[in-house]
Amino acid sequence: VLPRRIRILMLCAALGTPAVAGAEAGIDPWLRPAEVPAPVDNVPTAERVRLGQMLFFDPRLSGSNWISCASCHNPARGWSDGLPTGFGHGMQRLGRNTPTILNAAYNPIQMWDGRKKTLEEQALGPMGAEAEMHQNLDAIVDELSAVSGYRQLFEQAYPGEGITTATIAKAIASFERTVVSGDSPFDRWRRGDVDAMSASAKAGFDLFTGKANCSACHSGWNFTDNGFHNIGLRDDDPGRYAQLPLPSMRGAFKTPTLRDVALTAPYMHDGSYATLAEVVEHYDRGGDAREHLSPNMKPLQLSAAEKQALVDFMETLTGEPRDLTLVQLPH
Amino acid sequence: VLPRRIRILMLCAALGTPAVAGAEAGIDPWLRPAEVPAPVDNVPTAERVRLGQMLFFDPRLSGSNWISCASCHNPARGWSDGLPTGFGHGMQRLGRNTPTILNAAYNPIQMWDGRKKTLEEQALGPMGAEAEMHQNLDAIVDELSAVSGYRQLFEQAYPGEGITTATIAKAIASFERTVVSGDSPFDRWRRGDVDAMSASAKAGFDLFTGKANCSACHSGWNFTDNGFHNIGLRDDDPGRYAQLPLPSMRGAFKTPTLRDVALTAPYMHDGSYATLAEVVEHYDRGGDAREHLSPNMKPLQLSAAEKQALVDFMETLTGEPRDLTLVQLPH
Repeated sequence: VLPRRIRILMLCAALGTPAVAGAEAGIDPWLRPAEVPAPVDNVPTAERVRLGQMLFFDPRLSGSNWISCASCHNPARGWSDGLPTGFGHGMQRLGRNTPTILNAAYNPIQMWDGRKKTLEEQALGPMGAEAEMHQNLDAIVDELSAVSGYRQLFEQAYPGEGITTATIAKAIASFERTVVSGDSPFDRWRRGDVDAMSASAKAGFDLFTGKANCSACHSGWNFTDNGFHNIGLRDDDPGRYAQLPLPSMRGAFKTPTLRDVALTAPYMHDGSYATLAEVVEHYDRGGDAREHLSPNMKPLQLSAAEKQALVDFMETLTGEPRDLTLVQLPH
Repeated sequence: VLPRRIRILMLCAALGTPAVAGAEAGIDPWLRPAEVPAPVDNVPTAERVRLGQMLFFDPRLSGSNWISCASCHNPARGWSDGLPTGFGHGMQRLGRNTPTILNAAYNPIQMWDGRKKTLEEQALGPMGAEAEMHQNLDAIVDELSAVSGYRQLFEQAYPGEGITTATIAKAIASFERTVVSGDSPFDRWRRGDVDAMSASAKAGFDLFTGKANCSACHSGWNFTDNGFHNIGLRDDDPGRYAQLPLPSMRGAFKTPTLRDVALTAPYMHDGSYATLAEVVEHYDRGGDAREHLSPNMKPLQLSAAEKQALVDFMETLTGEPRDLTLVQLPH
């Protein structure tokens, strides 16, 4: 059973109560809107969030019974895994960097290549993927149905709906809707605390929205346009093109959030940069590969101080850590 | 940073403040002594416990940077993994069932075959083992030393001692000293709450200490004599014999704790039984293989009700879940 305090915290998050005290949602486009969007047939409740957290941390969701969602989307590592590219079943290397699930609740389109739209659609993807969690989706319904604790928890969360792949996905999505960015120095600065950011970080934000034009794609409070762009990396991953065969989509990947970005090294869809400084260098030289390059990619000719300022700014996007209590899984 | 409440909780555990209110330590041999033993050169402090928790959950401690201590000693699954035998590097199957680390702090000898004595000695074993976490122990010192957050945390926990394999082990051991069993129905019954256990569970305890004589080996509050016994399983693992070549040690394994045993299926050093009922059946028939069998192993001729009573009793050993907050790892 979750301690009462945590249940209340989660409920607040689930129900969209502002987690950022005093955030003027809808007024300042750089502050997180308190309300987390959710579909009408899966409005988050404390029971759904709680069940979803259990499923998210339950290794029984994988074919091996050893890998959970949290194995790769590790809350202790910014909801990613700190690896260039992830590991899947049998510890085989996967093809792309594990994206954080932070603020995924706000995204209208999911995954590096946008092949899923909603959190509900996305949740079953890695679970059923041969190379990832390697789970047979019929078998998982039987497996969870055999656990009396889960039968009870599903009935509380989705009365009358039973344990199905749909309710599994809905519960996980409900938990993910609570995984939102915490209050950061940048947020405090936006709300008027002039001392919350260094002069260099403030200069970095000016560069970000001005000369360096990062905000052409990393736009708004979540620092993403949810669009797809080729940023000139030297790899041959087709990216969005596999979903949408337009020339401009060749090697194009979804703009990731920059919230908590200092916690989620290494960077880029291929994990090829170890530090934010390397990322800034990449953009400063206008990328490497030139084919199908996004028109926003141009050499920036930044000074050393300007490059540092951009890094300093990005480091102010680290939010307060979320108070997440591990729960005993049902048996 | 750990929330204050959790830090205090952990400190209490680390400093041996009774977690079981009203436990009469030293009076009733079936109640956990409040004081957790610790070596004089590694007295637990809040800083050591906090650092140890981070290390315990940090996948960078493995060669792949994907496997942490908690991957197999999963707090959400009774500090074990729910598997017959564990997985190691490359997801290769290991030879034995992953033992819980619950109350390991109280054990004078560690591991199924007793090849390590203290928690400090044990901590580096799985980390350096080729088949388990596959970590080069020199490399891990360099790797953690490169993380500024860790440099600070080690200095706070072990001033002047630096980041070494010794301080890594000491910190992990300090955290493990907080992983102790919580208040259970059995404890409440021992303290005088006559309604805390069912009549069947009480009968089970009488059988446990009487007719079935389980307590010959599963003795005292932690339900272990820390001895080694061959209980007649059909496998060819030499067990303790590899450490201590005496005939009686052939196929002998350390008596595991039964605290939280309902959470740590499957059972036995080879994980061959899925349920506690199957375990009781095993003992009822006096084991299977007869060579080098412990003299305590005899057919029990229990009735169906008596078998159920033993299971009911073991289920009363599940303690209140511990309030464990996940912390962001340093970077």
